[in-house]
Amino acid sequence: MPAVTKGALLIKGGRVVNDDSMFDADVVVENGIITQVGKGLQAPSGARVIDATGKLILPGGIDPHTHMQLPFMGTTAVDDFYEGTKAALAGGTTMIIDFVIPQPGDSLLKAYETWRGWADPKVCCDYALSVAITKWTDKTASEMATLTNEKGINSFKFFMAYKNVFMVRDDEMFRAFQECRKLGALARVHAENGDVIFEKQQSLLELGVTGPEGHTQSRPEELEAEATNRACVLASQANCPLYVVHVMSKGAAEKIAEHRQKGAIVFGEPIAAGLATDGSNYFHTCWRHAAAHVLSPPLSHDPTTPGALMDLLASGQLHLTATDNCTFKSEQKAMGKDDFTKIPNGVNGVEDRMSVVWEKGVHSGKLDPMRFVAITSSTAAKIFNIYPQKGRIAVGSDADLVVVE
Amino acid sequence: MPAVTKGALLIKGGRVVNDDSMFDADVVVENGIITQVGKGLQAPSGARVIDATGKLILPGGIDPHTHMQLPFMGTTAVDDFYEGTKAALAGGTTMIIDFVIPQPGDSLLKAYETWRGWADPKVCCDYALSVAITKWTDKTASEMATLTNEKGINSFKFFMAYKNVFMVRDDEMFRAFQECRKLGALARVHAENGDVIFEKQQSLLELGVTGPEGHTQSRPEELEAEATNRACVLASQANCPLYVVHVMSKGAAEKIAEHRQKGAIVFGEPIAAGLATDGSNYFHTCWRHAAAHVLSPPLSHDPTTPGALMDLLASGQLHLTATDNCTFKSEQKAMGKDDFTKIPNGVNGVEDRMSVVWEKGVHSGKLDPMRFVAITSSTAAKIFNIYPQKGRIAVGSDADLVVVE
Amino acid sequence: MPAVTKGALLIKGGRVVNDDSMFDADVVVENGIITQVGKGLQAPSGARVIDATGKLILPGGIDPHTHMQLPFMGTTAVDDFYEGTKAALAGGTTMIIDFVIPQPGDSLLKAYETWRGWADPKVCCDYALSVAITKWTDKTASEMATLTNEKGINSFKFFMAYKNVFMVRDDEMFRAFQECRKLGALARVHAENGDVIFEKQQSLLELGVTGPEGHTQSRPEELEAEATNRACVLASQANCPLYVVHVMSKGAAEKIAEHRQKGAIVFGEPIAAGLATDGSNYFHTCWRHAAAHVLSPPLSHDPTTPGALMDLLASGQLHLTATDNCTFKSEQKAMGKDDFTKIPNGVNGVEDRMSVVWEKGVHSGKLDPMRFVAITSSTAAKIFNIYPQKGRIAVGSDADLVVVE
Amino acid sequence: MPAVTKGALLIKGGRVVNDDSMFDADVVVENGIITQVGKGLQAPSGARVIDATGKLILPGGIDPHTHMQLPFMGTTAVDDFYEGTKAALAGGTTMIIDFVIPQPGDSLLKAYETWRGWADPKVCCDYALSVAITKWTDKTASEMATLTNEKGINSFKFFMAYKNVFMVRDDEMFRAFQECRKLGALARVHAENGDVIFEKQQSLLELGVTGPEGHTQSRPEELEAEATNRACVLASQANCPLYVVHVMSKGAAEKIAEHRQKGAIVFGEPIAAGLATDGSNYFHTCWRHAAAHVLSPPLSHDPTTPGALMDLLASGQLHLTATDNCTFKSEQKAMGKDDFTKIPNGVNGVEDRMSVVWEKGVHSGKLDPMRFVAITSSTAAKIFNIYPQKGRIAVGSDADLVVVE
Repeated sequence: MPAVTKGALLIKGGRVVNDDSMFDADVVVENGIITQVGKGLQAPSGARVIDATGKLILPGGIDPHTHMQLPFMGTTAVDDFYEGTKAALAGGTTMIIDFVIPQPGDSLLKAYETWRGWADPKVCCDYALSVAITKWTDKTASEMATLTNEKGINSFKFFMAYKNVFMVRDDEMFRAFQECRKLGALARVHAENGDVIFEKQQSLLELGVTGPEGHTQSRPEELEAEATNRACVLASQANCPLYVVHVMSKGAAEKIAEHRQKGAIVFGEPIAAGLATDGSNYFHTCWRHAAAHVLSPPLSHDPTTPGALMDLLASGQLHLTATDNCTFKSEQKAMGKDDFTKIPNGVNGVEDRMSVVWEKGVHSGKLDPMRFVAITSSTAAKIFNIYPQKGRIAVGSDADLVVVE
Repeated sequence: MPAVTKGALLIKGGRVVNDDSMFDADVVVENGIITQVGKGLQAPSGARVIDATGKLILPGGIDPHTHMQLPFMGTTAVDDFYEGTKAALAGGTTMIIDFVIPQPGDSLLKAYETWRGWADPKVCCDYALSVAITKWTDKTASEMATLTNEKGINSFKFFMAYKNVFMVRDDEMFRAFQECRKLGALARVHAENGDVIFEKQQSLLELGVTGPEGHTQSRPEELEAEATNRACVLASQANCPLYVVHVMSKGAAEKIAEHRQKGAIVFGEPIAAGLATDGSNYFHTCWRHAAAHVLSPPLSHDPTTPGALMDLLASGQLHLTATDNCTFKSEQKAMGKDDFTKIPNGVNGVEDRMSVVWEKGVHSGKLDPMRFVAITSSTAAKIFNIYPQKGRIAVGSDADLVVVE
Repeated sequence: MPAVTKGALLIKGGRVVNDDSMFDADVVVENGIITQVGKGLQAPSGARVIDATGKLILPGGIDPHTHMQLPFMGTTAVDDFYEGTKAALAGGTTMIIDFVIPQPGDSLLKAYETWRGWADPKVCCDYALSVAITKWTDKTASEMATLTNEKGINSFKFFMAYKNVFMVRDDEMFRAFQECRKLGALARVHAENGDVIFEKQQSLLELGVTGPEGHTQSRPEELEAEATNRACVLASQANCPLYVVHVMSKGAAEKIAEHRQKGAIVFGEPIAAGLATDGSNYFHTCWRHAAAHVLSPPLSHDPTTPGALMDLLASGQLHLTATDNCTFKSEQKAMGKDDFTKIPNGVNGVEDRMSVVWEKGVHSGKLDPMRFVAITSSTAAKIFNIYPQKGRIAVGSDADLVVVE
Repeated sequence: MPAVTKGALLIKGGRVVNDDSMFDADVVVENGIITQVGKGLQAPSGARVIDATGKLILPGGIDPHTHMQLPFMGTTAVDDFYEGTKAALAGGTTMIIDFVIPQPGDSLLKAYETWRGWADPKVCCDYALSVAITKWTDKTASEMATLTNEKGINSFKFFMAYKNVFMVRDDEMFRAFQECRKLGALARVHAENGDVIFEKQQSLLELGVTGPEGHTQSRPEELEAEATNRACVLASQANCPLYVVHVMSKGAAEKIAEHRQKGAIVFGEPIAAGLATDGSNYFHTCWRHAAAHVLSPPLSHDPTTPGALMDLLASGQLHLTATDNCTFKSEQKAMGKDDFTKIPNGVNGVEDRMSVVWEKGVHSGKLDPMRFVAITSSTAAKIFNIYPQKGRIAVGSDADLVVVE
């Protein structure tokens, strides 16, 4: 997946792929906007001409879940907004949605400004922000309203895990879900039962389990499914649409389906890592290898999970893909060499997602290129209300284009 | 839902609705094709100008399930291809997909020609045909191939009910599903357990139950769910996509979801009647009223079913709407006045579907206009491979347009 | 259901019903113990003789869930251990299991002694105690061990509702479940999401909803199902058997089944009120009537729930019946006349359960008398480890007998 | 599992295990009947005394599913009623229920007499018969009635597979289910979709797949689940209890649970082979080994199935165990050496079942000895209405006893 391009441009002879159709067409771009799509188009004067004969032209990928330069677990994610978005572009992703994560009790607005300050000078691609609510305070409702009405924030995130760090309880989450409904904003959740995980972590450490295998042992898939179910119930009670980030297990996917079958609007987002590999990595004899795969919820212990998640993306029971890109070097991961609960959580993916989904989905015959576009770009654009500016190759849309061999 | 228009035309000031976006735009039509979509467009010379200010412009509806002038149960459906398609247009539906239903053992090709002979001289709107296979013979496979490769037939239908009439058994259906896979054709099923229904009909008649209530009593919803499950299993075994026509009950919808959750590609089609009313009609004191509602599978005895089916269309667990339009006059229905098994099965709907779905879906707040377009038009166009010629308002598409107040 | 009898006794000519068989036999009782079961038995000298010709002789009922003279919501349940157990006997129930409920933070042992002090002087029938854990403290684990090892307490109860009163959080519950596993004790849960209920209560009061209808509106069934699922997951994680008290809705019953299907040991207990009537009572025009039905979780809003719960008792998907007997007079209920959250929660049932289950289960044809014995007596005896001393008519068992016309 | 004993006898010092309790007791047997159970019993004069100190005394096993000397697939099962019942006794099984299987159209009564003629002179243990209905004829209903009313047959069996041999269609099965309801008899089904299996067999043979792997490839588990669901629906429609023989897959077990959750009475019977091993045997490099495991439905391809089936027996979602004992020598199996569809179907097990269930269930910690008794003996006795004569150690019961080290 090579060239990602902007500027005055004619792409000739390719095959345009949108989420609903594929057709042979040239594409003309001027000032970053697609101005023509059709056959036999002329290059605007001075335009660069790219020959896309025999190639596909796709809308640029949108990664709706990244954590660039996130301060987390005593260190900071090593992909900053420059490196991270450069990697995104290298992999065919032309927009990311990152997360503002305030410390519990801190002002949402201040945190928002902090993230803007970090991102604006550095980003190489388009980006948007989703704001996490890590504690409910007297000011939360009004700050949510300000963010939505004045800053364009249309989604909020909730952690049901990371106890004593970012975790919120059901009462806090339910209040915020009700505000989301009022504002027309989307609720996004990290679904795991943080209380039980915390207890399991302590028990494992007491038993002398300190290595990365403790990470997966303290976070059984049943706890992801439980929290997913709980989040769905709370969202239904608040009458608020829900978006479950990083669906890592079949059980969680089943809970999403169960609630959709009752008519609820719930979206499920598998990530590149979960589509590519499984939890056997946590038992690798090389500590570095094992620690490199530590993220939460963990990779599934069931080797058939990656394939099953792709099946559900194909059949429409899951909806879009992300990465949860949050990278730490081995030296950073080594902070947890004697205690798995101190390994900074996170994996890469923003550069790899498009190729992983292509290989596991399209090459395998599960997806056609149109569905590939849907789950890597268009559906994200629709959910976050930036479609068809993003997520579609059409006159008037942004020229976020990927030409694929 | 008034005007459906063709010809040289400028529609000004309206709001275009596609399944993925809504935007204010004028639309220019020339020679039946949309040639421009945009703001401030000029009328081609001699064009009729329609002021759509404050109105929505939708793609014409596609009804993927009708039975015009069907010879059935000793009589013929009273809506012929003229009356039926005129009614369709009056209701905002600009294309229908009707069914060729050969007598068991008859040539599929001959039957296809018969239907063409009935439809071609009469239709007022675009139409396509799906061909039923009512018996597996030595010639079935080759005739299916001819129909697909030479006549453009891309779907085949199977009746799991109407024993001794159109019903096929699992071995026949499975063979045909395998052919569908080879041809890239879609399998469509009427899912009810015809064997058990037949036994129940005999028992009820022996007990002296002869009225329309016997119709629903002989066809419990559990038999629809059972057959739906069976069809899904057979389609998965044949690796063939499946389309379940007239999903009438929650149980059938659950079976579809269960198989999609395993990664299967299965589509579910509720019909206007099933979204609009329920099985209490079979117990109406007026025989005519009750008999008028006789169709198979019957309307659900559960009064919460119509709302639940609409919820599933909203959440994406069901996929598109049809009518099964197959109309009989009271005199025809009266053939079964002493024996409910002789009441010709069928209801109207082709004229009413768009307004029923709008009222039950959009007015109720369950659907936005984009989802309305999806389930009345675009999804059908995509499934039957006529998109974006049909099902979308875009340059190059057919000018099948509905302007809605 | 008349006579419950103790003492030297010959019951002649009846039909003995156990949970696994029915047979004609005389029964001889001496010193409160069944000493002979067989045909043509002689009365011990001085024995009273009862003619049970044409009647059934059943093991006395065991009500595993009562709250006699419970201090609750600012008042005390009006059935004390005398009145309550007298009522039990009058209805054919010869043993109850009541709950010790300490104030959060109070000593479990002290609370146990308090309840013993209340019950011992007053009870008319056999009784046992289950101890609630309303807060996890440093002493909880050791007190649980003492209760089990020295006081014979083999079950503990957890409230997932009644926030700020008895509710425990997942971490507390999970710790205690792990202790239960170590001790071989059973965990019992009141399953509702107390956090969300609390929020809903506040919202309803703010909206001006103060009547008993607010009780059901603040406690949707979905919150019972959610908590039931959560309790099952936590119990599985702790590898501890679970007993869900007062299963009031189909959704909760489904969650129990879902976890049993994964091999978990979970028991579900419907109560007499939930088998007898539904939530329409909360909308009764008489406040007294409506308030009299206030209990938690509330009676189901779905009128088919009582019948469905009985079906599940019949098919073995639910396991035994109780009452949650906790009675308040109208004057007490009136404490909540201006605020439904202040209506003391609780209904009667200990006198009525046997006849309600007989009528709804046996008369309706869903249960045979053996299954009736199982769900009113034997299963409780087995679960609480007092079988076959209780719950069976056999030589050596306690003479807890009911003769039914 | 050694001694199985009859005659005048005192068993001293053992621990009696029934399905509902365990207790230390001596057992006295006279004339084949248990005459005393208690402590410190005296031996009847001339009685043999067995010291069971430190041992368990269990009710003899009941194997509710065997096929001794069955004429099948062109040969005859090699365990006749003598060898087969000798093997049963050697393994602690003291009663079998075998199947009368008439050729389609043959008289049920005549077939019953044939089997009696084969079994009566040879059996070493108690036995009963279940009668298969392999075709519905004018005489079927009256013969069923005669068998039930005059011959004591209280169950009938139906094959949904073995097309063109024993398979019945839904209409035949539904008629017979209705007769079962009238007679109070139990319907038992072999649940697989025989139509699709037949098609798959032909396709595999055409592709050149002739070895035992073709057996499992032609019988995917989905076809077992489908037929299980269908049988449950038909039984519910006929209001007849159902017993699914040889539940071999998780999917089939789920369908049984799904219908029990709707209140249906359905029993599920895993067999020893399915609890002991899996379908990897079909890919063994030794043809004899692979062919030896050919039975229908086949062993599960999922290696976690045997453990999961045992979990469900433990939690009560499945109900009792059998063997489907139907043995063929290698020379007989070799009839299918060039065509897997000609390998006589069947495995052994009647001698091994008790020890397999003990090892996989009790040794593994999933079952206690009482649950072991339930699923190997008592539940069968209850279902087939021979309890407590069989399936229980109690005064008056048959002295079918197993002493286990």
